[in-house]
Amino acid sequence: MMNSNRMVIRHARQLVTNEASRPLKGREMEENLKVIEDGGIWIENGLIKKIGTDKEVWKAVCDHGQTKLVTLIDASQHLVTPGLVDPHTHLVFAGSREDEFEMRLKGAAYMDIMNAGGGIHRTTSATAAASEEELMAVAKERLDLFLRHGVTTIEAKSGYGLSLENERKQLVVAKRLNAIHPVTIVSTFMGAHAVPKEYKTNRETFVDMVVENMIPAIAREGLARFNDVFCEEGVFTPEQSKRILEAGKAHGLIPKIHADEIVSYGGAELAADVGAISADHLLKVSDKGIEKMAAKGVIGVLLPATAFFLMEKPANARKMIEGNVAVALSTDRNPGSSPTESMPFVMNLACLTMGMTPKEVLTAATINAASAIGEEQVVGSLEPGKKADLVFWNAPNYTYLHYHVGVNMVDKVFKDGKLVVTNGVVI
Amino acid sequence: MMNSNRMVIRHARQLVTNEASRPLKGREMEENLKVIEDGGIWIENGLIKKIGTDKEVWKAVCDHGQTKLVTLIDASQHLVTPGLVDPHTHLVFAGSREDEFEMRLKGAAYMDIMNAGGGIHRTTSATAAASEEELMAVAKERLDLFLRHGVTTIEAKSGYGLSLENERKQLVVAKRLNAIHPVTIVSTFMGAHAVPKEYKTNRETFVDMVVENMIPAIAREGLARFNDVFCEEGVFTPEQSKRILEAGKAHGLIPKIHADEIVSYGGAELAADVGAISADHLLKVSDKGIEKMAAKGVIGVLLPATAFFLMEKPANARKMIEGNVAVALSTDRNPGSSPTESMPFVMNLACLTMGMTPKEVLTAATINAASAIGEEQVVGSLEPGKKADLVFWNAPNYTYLHYHVGVNMVDKVFKDGKLVVTNGVVI
Ligand SMILES: [Zn+2]
Ligand SMILES: [Zn+2]
Repeated sequence: MMNSNRMVIRHARQLVTNEASRPLKGREMEENLKVIEDGGIWIENGLIKKIGTDKEVWKAVCDHGQTKLVTLIDASQHLVTPGLVDPHTHLVFAGSREDEFEMRLKGAAYMDIMNAGGGIHRTTSATAAASEEELMAVAKERLDLFLRHGVTTIEAKSGYGLSLENERKQLVVAKRLNAIHPVTIVSTFMGAHAVPKEYKTNRETFVDMVVENMIPAIAREGLARFNDVFCEEGVFTPEQSKRILEAGKAHGLIPKIHADEIVSYGGAELAADVGAISADHLLKVSDKGIEKMAAKGVIGVLLPATAFFLMEKPANARKMIEGNVAVALSTDRNPGSSPTESMPFVMNLACLTMGMTPKEVLTAATINAASAIGEEQVVGSLEPGKKADLVFWNAPNYTYLHYHVGVNMVDKVFKDGKLVVTNGVVI
Repeated sequence: MMNSNRMVIRHARQLVTNEASRPLKGREMEENLKVIEDGGIWIENGLIKKIGTDKEVWKAVCDHGQTKLVTLIDASQHLVTPGLVDPHTHLVFAGSREDEFEMRLKGAAYMDIMNAGGGIHRTTSATAAASEEELMAVAKERLDLFLRHGVTTIEAKSGYGLSLENERKQLVVAKRLNAIHPVTIVSTFMGAHAVPKEYKTNRETFVDMVVENMIPAIAREGLARFNDVFCEEGVFTPEQSKRILEAGKAHGLIPKIHADEIVSYGGAELAADVGAISADHLLKVSDKGIEKMAAKGVIGVLLPATAFFLMEKPANARKMIEGNVAVALSTDRNPGSSPTESMPFVMNLACLTMGMTPKEVLTAATINAASAIGEEQVVGSLEPGKKADLVFWNAPNYTYLHYHVGVNMVDKVFKDGKLVVTNGVVI
């Protein structure tokens, strides 16, 4: 009796498929996105078996001859899209930093905030002090919010440990959450997120620790798929970053880079040189960096909510798209520079602060985001064989999703064909 | 048996009262906002009877001797604030204009969009073609969204009629909705929202119609409290605007102005001269205009979502606050330049695009917004005698409300002491 796992979604007002199982570059981001009016999806055991117009899909179901044993879902009031993918989050941490935000708006300088005990080291201390169970609880709340905003797969980085013990704790929490929560979590080790205070005058020693101690241990336990580094003036140099990323590769961890956020520092170029899957931030990326990313197929993960929250000019998405880079979008969820779980909000910012078109934005938040974390064969588009990770939006069409700004229009979310959000609430 | 109407809210994690029944100017916007930790509210027949710490309030209830007949509500997980007030919306209209938005992001010029049948006249035609019942249905959906975003009182303008019949239709719909929906609606007549095509070469004739025909009829029926005009180059001159606003005053309608949005045009100065309750938009307000607004107590209603959606530099809120103006915030909900019902989103924009502080923003979205529509004696703050219009937020404190960007944290809404939203869903 497998019939309870057969489901057909009927009469979707508009259905975005965006069929592809690879990153879409440049103009493909606009041109690949097709929509089906009055769409249908046949789902079997959590996977898409057939997708097309309602008529085509229903005919296939009837020909199969088991229509009585099918769960039918009406989507006539909804735009239906692939579940969103968020390829860059710092999900697991303790504490929040709203007081620093208020200080900043009242005119405090960065150093005032640091002197008041603020900044990343505050989060590192809070995370070190928190138990695994405490971290599970706060990260689960964040995951529920991601899900309510239409996100069905996310990446989660460590990086608030900065010691093997505490980096490992973050990754173990992510692994445990992945097992119990509908949102799929793909993990990234980021021991090189900052230089701990005690190594400020002795940075190479910390790099040695990351390379010789942390990476091998994390890889041995299979706790991460990717290895990320904050390559930025005053944090890790391109040389140090390269050493860390090559060490990861030697242990099977695929490189990612926080690149060119504050100054143009060669991060994008390095991403191309080491064969990184993505370079992220890119506010100050050089023309040469864009060229090399396009040539080597490095995905540009843009984080407009971070720029917005820091009141910075966002990355030049148009230049990258015109330079034939595959662009993805992400929240960058973290307590210091991007306290949001809303990909729809990030998508609004992508249109209105970076001039991306509605179609480009949807591509960037689905198949390109999935590609940035190696999930492009399983999610990121709606086509036979892929997971039935779907969002039903209270919107008549894909353009309205972007136009109706500042409002989370998620009505239902299906994960692996299972209803996990309804009426905007996690069930 | 009035006891079912007695309710006590206990142990609010943080309670924002912001006691005041007048607009707060300049530094008052920051300084007046006080918070109570572990707060309580005693509500009797929909009005606040007592507010303070939980201990104080509970003692008063006990002294009153009827504790057994009280409904108790636990607020220990929530920040509690006054219901938000939105003092500038174009609530009642038919149709949406997402295709124009996509055209714009794909590089279309304003004239291309107009030539494709876009712009305000498209909404005017759709609204003229819609029945009262159709307008009721779409406006009710928008009201539900306002409520889900913590708004308990809004202003609603006509202005997509531009003829007595169709302006009246919009105002009748607003009146009918006010009677059946929890959100309180205060109406504004805005026959002078645009010049109809057929009067483009004959503008004075249209002004005559507004002054001689529409205003007296609308006022006679009691369909509006305010009279608004779009004072802007190419729309209505300051002289025409003055004539329209003075005519309204003669019929008991209080003036409001859409002022200095696109060019500096003397709108703020005119607002002060005619004794307008508010001047709205103000992206291009002159220094003289700010001075006159402060001197005459004209409230500046700022609309950062409109600037954001049009990719314009927002109004200079800091200059106005430092110039001792009372600043309020609003969505400006309309289909052309601000398709959002989210005041929390507007509040995020106020912090991050206009540099307002969290306290200033809360004042601007509550007591100052209420003052901009003449409701400051009944709502906009939490104090004895005022309506128990409350929002329970999934936030530990008022700073977090602004810091956790792009996420609607409304958990519960009470209107006149009655629960109308729970778990973020309208009941
Ligand atoms: Zn990051
Ligand atoms: Zn307006």
